[in-house]
Amino acid sequence: MFIILVYDANEKRVQKFHKTCKKYLTWVQNSVFEGEITEANLRILTDELKDIMDENEDSVLIYKFRTKKYYERDSIGISKPSHEDLFF
Amino acid sequence: MFIILVYDANEKRVQKFHKTCKKYLTWVQNSVFEGEITEANLRILTDELKDIMDENEDSVLIYKFRTKKYYERDSIGISKPSHEDLFF
Repeated sequence: MFIILVYDANEKRVQKFHKTCKKYLTWVQNSVFEGEITEANLRILTDELKDIMDENEDSVLIYKFRTKKYYERDSIGISKPSHEDLFF
Repeated sequence: MFIILVYDANEKRVQKFHKTCKKYLTWVQNSVFEGEITEANLRILTDELKDIMDENEDSVLIYKFRTKKYYERDSIGISKPSHEDLFF
């Protein structure tokens, strides 16, 4: 399946969120990842995120799509910061 | 069509982004909006965003879907801040 994952996390945990998501998905914007993922890997990813997040402070939205067929993405402005290492 | 709009904007402009998007879409997370929108309104929205954004600093991603049929959204942690007026 194809997913778009967006998180809103406390500054203290943003780096851990980023590194965890990056193992399974493609970074497309500051707190936005997307990509194809299996049901099993999505479960592992969400478990890992639950381990690092504070569910009273942080928020994760996962949009799941069976197919990319009906999907189109437009981008305005800069693409994600080119120097990822500057940030993480 | 159904869209998911995610922005990453300079702190100085976040409030304007929020108020502009809120006219057309539903706020679901810190810098994430979603909802049904016509092609014409999407053009108006993107033009309004282009007027307020600095395309060298800010970024907007718009995921467009012809149908919500293949779409499912999971949420972990808090939903968007309940007191919207506290923030905007």
